[in-house]
Amino acid sequence: MSHKIYVVGIGPGAYEQMTVKAADVLRQSDVIIGYTVYIDLVRDHLPGKQFLSTPMTKETDRCRMAFSEARKGKTVSVICSGDAGIYGMAGLMYEIGAQYPDTELEVIPGVTAATAGAALLGAPLIHDFCVISLSDLLTPWETIEKRILAASRADFSVCLYNPSSKKRRDYLKKACELMLKYKSPDTVCGIVKNIGREGEEKSLLTLQELKDAEADMFTTVFVGNSQTKTLSEAMVTPRGYQDV
Amino acid sequence: MSHKIYVVGIGPGAYEQMTVKAADVLRQSDVIIGYTVYIDLVRDHLPGKQFLSTPMTKETDRCRMAFSEARKGKTVSVICSGDAGIYGMAGLMYEIGAQYPDTELEVIPGVTAATAGAALLGAPLIHDFCVISLSDLLTPWETIEKRILAASRADFSVCLYNPSSKKRRDYLKKACELMLKYKSPDTVCGIVKNIGREGEEKSLLTLQELKDAEADMFTTVFVGNSQTKTLSEAMVTPRGYQDV
Ligand SMILES: C[S@@+](CC[C@H](N)C(=O)[O-])C[C@H]1O[C@@H](n2cnc3c(N)ncnc32)[C@H](O)[C@@H]1O
Ligand SMILES: C[S@@+](CC[C@H](N)C(=O)[O-])C[C@H]1O[C@@H](n2cnc3c(N)ncnc32)[C@H](O)[C@@H]1O
Repeated sequence: MSHKIYVVGIGPGAYEQMTVKAADVLRQSDVIIGYTVYIDLVRDHLPGKQFLSTPMTKETDRCRMAFSEARKGKTVSVICSGDAGIYGMAGLMYEIGAQYPDTELEVIPGVTAATAGAALLGAPLIHDFCVISLSDLLTPWETIEKRILAASRADFSVCLYNPSSKKRRDYLKKACELMLKYKSPDTVCGIVKNIGREGEEKSLLTLQELKDAEADMFTTVFVGNSQTKTLSEAMVTPRGYQDV
Repeated sequence: MSHKIYVVGIGPGAYEQMTVKAADVLRQSDVIIGYTVYIDLVRDHLPGKQFLSTPMTKETDRCRMAFSEARKGKTVSVICSGDAGIYGMAGLMYEIGAQYPDTELEVIPGVTAATAGAALLGAPLIHDFCVISLSDLLTPWETIEKRILAASRADFSVCLYNPSSKKRRDYLKKACELMLKYKSPDTVCGIVKNIGREGEEKSLLTLQELKDAEADMFTTVFVGNSQTKTLSEAMVTPRGYQDV
């Protein structure tokens, strides 16, 4: 192994939401590669660094760029929002990395939208939960549907990533309709937008109301289990079933 | 609201695995309350602080201690390993907090064992996954069983917390037997112990082998989905189903 690339989760938004280790790694890097939105979140804190970017959809190019910079002998960090291992670049970096056996990868974990959003809402994910993406770009909708149904029937709390985009406006509604087959319409739910960024917003609502709620690509959605309750404006799932 | 308590996730172990924000909050606190093991992880970095603790099982006492210290006008942080909202103290703090309406809670999210362990193994949780605790102290085993079966049938990757303890030596084996009803015995799995702490260890194995593996209370277990593979000793779940 002569080269090394760090794949760094920078947390949901604010610079202080990244780990001490992630901040150290970025400070020690020569080149920082990422989608423009994420570069903009860290740029001001890292004067004098080289920043490289590609458009959002060009993820494979971004990965190859990292390997080629590393081969020049530079210390390279690829950055992702949240955690790089949750719908992030870590997987693709390993897949493409198979073609670059002289380059070692180290993933630096970060706070993912699920736990950052949960912290804003209260404690919705204290007990067993599922994380599901509603994006069907790479996953057939039938698989997503099967998972939503399974999670609901087994009374998991559910955290939804990628709940919506311009092309998929009605996906959150479809997901709610599936969940309503097993979860009560009164199930406590929460929506969090732009965590740690400008326009941070949260709201509590019922599953019935969630069906018609607005979500965008910077939204994470939380659906409680049958025990989840509202406690002085916080969404709280008890740790167990001691009360039932 | 005249008082405030921070509920802080300190990450899996090493001090640098906590967020910049968490480190700031602890530095600004007068009193830091937590289970002894966690206090020991941060004590050397925070000279001059007051540390309070209770035995592991006395979680309710620890919460009440926090509210009573806050009422004395002190800045109080309650610390948890990983993220306070994942099988942590955030939920109980809100539940007990209902009796202390003059005290505001703020949860500071942290890197949870699932993402920290995933980073060590490669990228096992890149796609949809479930987090399930095998502890039946507060949850009937039937509920746990139902969730394991549902997660396996819907081809989720699964991350198991609390996989074992002295009283529950065979729970991991039981969980594997349930998963084997729907998941192939060759499913790629990973075990991570003592993340960020002395004795950090990881290994890759098949679901068939996991059945007889050793786990303790500082172990987190990862079970892949049907697409998960081994790539130069890393456990990697592809982001989608483009190859099938
Ligand atoms: C491609 S995924 C990336 C997830 C990221 N790697 C993580 O661990 O948080 C994008 C989705 O993550 C969620 N997300 C990421 N950052 C967010 C933020 N700051 N606020 C709210 N949701 C966010 C949203 O659901 C968004 O659609
Ligand atoms: C009561 S739960 C607390 C989880 C913690 N709040 C978190 O977010 O990581 C305890 C379980 O978390 C996992 N865990 C916590 N810290 C760990 C570490 N440093 N290494 C491996 N597993 C850990 C293990 O599965 C353990 O049995």
